[in-house]
Order: sequence, then structure tokens, then C-alpha cells
Amino acid sequence: MKLHILGCYAATPRTLTNPTSQVLEMKNQLFLIDCGEGTQVQLRKYKIKFSRINHIFISHLHGDHFFGLPGLISTFRLLGREKELHVHGPKGIKEAITLLLKLGDSWTNYPLVFHELSSLGPELVYEDDTVAVTTIPLEHRVYTNGFLFREKPGERKLNVDAVAKYKVDRAYFRNIKNGKDVLMDDGSVLVNSELTYDPPKPKSYAYCSDTAYKPDIVEQISGADALYHESTFLESEAHLSAKTKHATAKEAASIAKSANVGALVLGHYSTRYKSIALFKEEAQEIFPNVYLADDGKVFEF
Amino acid sequence: MKLHILGCYAATPRTLTNPTSQVLEMKNQLFLIDCGEGTQVQLRKYKIKFSRINHIFISHLHGDHFFGLPGLISTFRLLGREKELHVHGPKGIKEAITLLLKLGDSWTNYPLVFHELSSLGPELVYEDDTVAVTTIPLEHRVYTNGFLFREKPGERKLNVDAVAKYKVDRAYFRNIKNGKDVLMDDGSVLVNSELTYDPPKPKSYAYCSDTAYKPDIVEQISGADALYHESTFLESEAHLSAKTKHATAKEAASIAKSANVGALVLGHYSTRYKSIALFKEEAQEIFPNVYLADDGKVFEF
Repeated sequence: MKLHILGCYAATPRTLTNPTSQVLEMKNQLFLIDCGEGTQVQLRKYKIKFSRINHIFISHLHGDHFFGLPGLISTFRLLGREKELHVHGPKGIKEAITLLLKLGDSWTNYPLVFHELSSLGPELVYEDDTVAVTTIPLEHRVYTNGFLFREKPGERKLNVDAVAKYKVDRAYFRNIKNGKDVLMDDGSVLVNSELTYDPPKPKSYAYCSDTAYKPDIVEQISGADALYHESTFLESEAHLSAKTKHATAKEAASIAKSANVGALVLGHYSTRYKSIALFKEEAQEIFPNVYLADDGKVFEF
Repeated sequence: MKLHILGCYAATPRTLTNPTSQVLEMKNQLFLIDCGEGTQVQLRKYKIKFSRINHIFISHLHGDHFFGLPGLISTFRLLGREKELHVHGPKGIKEAITLLLKLGDSWTNYPLVFHELSSLGPELVYEDDTVAVTTIPLEHRVYTNGFLFREKPGERKLNVDAVAKYKVDRAYFRNIKNGKDVLMDDGSVLVNSELTYDPPKPKSYAYCSDTAYKPDIVEQISGADALYHESTFLESEAHLSAKTKHATAKEAASIAKSANVGALVLGHYSTRYKSIALFKEEAQEIFPNVYLADDGKVFEF
């Protein structure tokens, strides 16, 4: 599981800091999460293969999280995309994108499918054989969701020595990997746990931005391998944080601790601070395993 | 008169090439012309004072000419703008921007005034004491206007020696600069041309992008000091140019020659070509005074 940070700063794009966008690589798929202005340039800069992105998840409709989407959608058309592109985001996103494409008389020549979100509770928004994605309802100035990406358990690993010892026929291997026991010709039963090892533990990633401190998400994201939680402010600006429905580094750490996640990645920094190292310092007073997102950084979990 | 090129490449933004946007400095005012994705970052990069921009002119509603506008408008809000901002662009632009701001529940706290264009003939869209801006109807796949920026004639320059010689009272100077003759106490008349010099010739700039070859614009832009004319293609790709309603470098040069402009600036290059120098070579076969726009370049006319 790999996380590419394309942009992780709050508010307006600047020469060296980009608004929110990231790509999650999970089970050999690329998921784009949020799409601030300039995302397509960041994708190019970090040599991420655009064409492998089939699902885009938009947390909320503030510009710094989605003003790059119309351009990316248009660029897919110019690049001759034919595959479906799925956009998951708040109600209204379809009308906005559709209007922009209509005004430019430049509708996509590939199928563009919108999945509009309005549920106030967690909702399964994407699922295939290997991955499931569920919304994490957040609290911000507008309707906002985080997203929980979960790998599904893989098949069990064959214990090669055991199947050899019991002379199990290859024909049974598929069933064995799927957890089945084996009925042998002599009527005996080989239980699956003797023939297989547990598969690697499925990984999970929780993306929570933008949001006020919202402890009721803890249960849903509990035990995630990695949590990206916004930390627009430090505690010294907690008054701004409350007013704008953002979180502080300390609050992000407190969520990480309560949810017992593997790692906390901080981001969505206000550019008012001299160094983002301050966010890590503050968070580590509560939770030890803290990483700082930064544009262009790649995390492997 | 200064022209700052922020972006001048066709289609999608790339790491090193930006879609169309430029700032014209005329009579101490800054006019933003087109606003492709990333324009606000380019404005920062080239240290152009955002706050001095009060009028934005959008040629047409293809993404590479206006997908940077919602972000720029939002950024003005974050920067605490209070002055009016005027956006001149094709009908539909108000609905698009308004919808995006509404979805993000982030209406501007400064007055945002739209001037929607739909006229098929030239139309005066902006005028003050020193500058007038008129649309130049162009031919593209969607409704498109170029813009002709004209300085108004300044006041006449006082001939200091002449007014001293005739002992003209200072009280008359304002009228003299405005072209008036002077009735002297002895009943004689000093004609204005004896007391003043002609003011500097008012400058003009014609912006024509995107457009197919459209010779009927020649009369309107005749004698402009500078013409920016798109040249998406070279003549070798004239078939694509015709199909997509763009122009070739040769066609741009032919317009420049017929209109007898002072200088031709080429831009809106397709990124298919190895070097933009090819555009200049092709154009100079028709018209000598050719400049190549490039991101970050500044022209002074």
C-alpha cells in the first residue's frame, strides 16, 4: 500500500505548495483522492500513470479539494481515454462538472460516471474483489466525507510441505486456498489450517480531510494501518480551528491514539507556520508514530 | 505598454508549459486576459500584484482558457479583497462560477460583477479615462472573442519655450494641454499648435486566441502596435488547424501583414512540435517582426 502526496497544503495553491490531492496505490489499483487546482500537473511531475486512475474520490466541494477536477477530466479526453471514469463526491458535483463541459462544448468521449453522495452515515461507495471503500462522515463547513480504503483478505497461502506430505492432489489446491478442508480417498478429513498459512493481514487507509475534531469517527477507522488526518492549525490557533471547522495537530493525534492506528500522516497545513515540523512535534506529544505529508512524498505502509 | 505571458501553450497544463493567460499593463492598469488552470500560481511566480487586477477578460469557455478562474476568484476572497472584480466573458460564465462558489458555500466577500458577452459584432466592453476595450469576434468551435485594448490619446505636451515667449499665464495651461487656443489680453489668438506638441501616439494591443484564420478582423485591428495571434499549428498540420478551428503560424503572419501591426506575438502552441522556433521561422516568411510568446516572458511595446 503506497500513498503519493500530490498536494497537502490548505487554501490557495502557491508556487511551492499545492492544494489537496493524493493517490493511493492499493492492490495494484490507483485511487485519486481529492483534486485541487494543479493536480494534473502534479500527476505528471511525479510520473504517475494517469490512465490507471479509474476512480476519483472527492471529500467536499471547496475549491482547494476539487478545482483541478474539470481540467483533469478534460485532459483525459485529450489523451484519448476510452475507459470509464468514476467520480465519487458530494451531491452537486455532477451538475458542476457537466455545466463546465457543456459550456466548452467538450463532453468527454469516454463514459464519465458520477456517484453523488449525500448520506450522513458511512456508506459503501466502491467495492471489487480486492478493495472496498466506505465514506467516513466528517464535520466541516460544507458536507464532507473522508474515505476508508480496505483491502479484502487475500486467499490463504498453501503450505507446500504439508500438501506434499499428505499427497493432496493439485486439483484441490484452489479450494484449499479458499479455506476449504479436504476429504481424502480413505475418508479422512484434512483440516484447512493444517494445509495453509494465514494470508497477509489486509491493509486499510483512512483519509480524513477536511474536518473539525470528530471523535465519533474513531470506531470506524479503528486499527487502520495509516490515517491521514488534517491538521490545518496548531493548538495555539485552536480558536481559528473551531471557527473554521478544521483540526489541530493535537486533535489529529488524539484521534490516531484512540483509533489505535498504525501511523498518523498529518497534512492540510495552514501556510502561516514557519515550519511544518511544528505539527509533528505537537502531535507526538500524544501519539508517537507521526509522519508529515509533503508535496511529492511517497509513503509505503 | 507591457505584456506578461503567464501561459501560452495549447490544451493541457504540463510541468513546464501553462495554458493561456496573460497580463496586459496599460496606462498603469493591469488587465488579466484568459485564465487557464494554474494562473494564480503563475501570477505569484512572476510576482504580479494580484490586487491590482480589477478586470478579467475571458475569450471563450474552453478549459485551457478559464479553468483557473474559480480558484483565482476564491483566492481573492481568502486574501481579503474588498474592491469590485469585473469578469468579462461569454454568456454562461456567470452561471458556472456562481454554481461553483455556491457548492462550496464560499461566496466572495467582495463585489463580483459579471459582464456576459454574446454579441456577434465588436462591442465596447470596458472604458475609462485612459483605456477602451472592444471585443474582436473570432471564429472557434465555441463562441469566442478576442480583445482590442486601446489607450486614449493623452493630453498635449506644453511647449515650454513657446508659452514663455508669449508670456502665457499659467492659468491657461490646463486648457492648452486639452487643445484649446488662447485669447490674449491684446485680443490676439495663439493657436494651440504653436503652444504644444502632439502627445505620444496612443498604443493598442490586439489579443486573438483561439481562432481559425479570420481575415475579416484585419480592419478592426489595423495598425495595432502589437498583435497576439494564436498559432496552434504549422502549415504542415493545416488539416488539423482547419478541423479544430485554430490557426497556423503562416495564417497569423498573414493577418499581421494585412493589418500592418507593429509586432506579431505568436502563442497557443501545440506541444507536438520539438521547438517553438519553428513557428517564428514560418511566420517570418510573411511578416518580419515576429516574437515568440513563452511562459514568463515580458514584452514591452
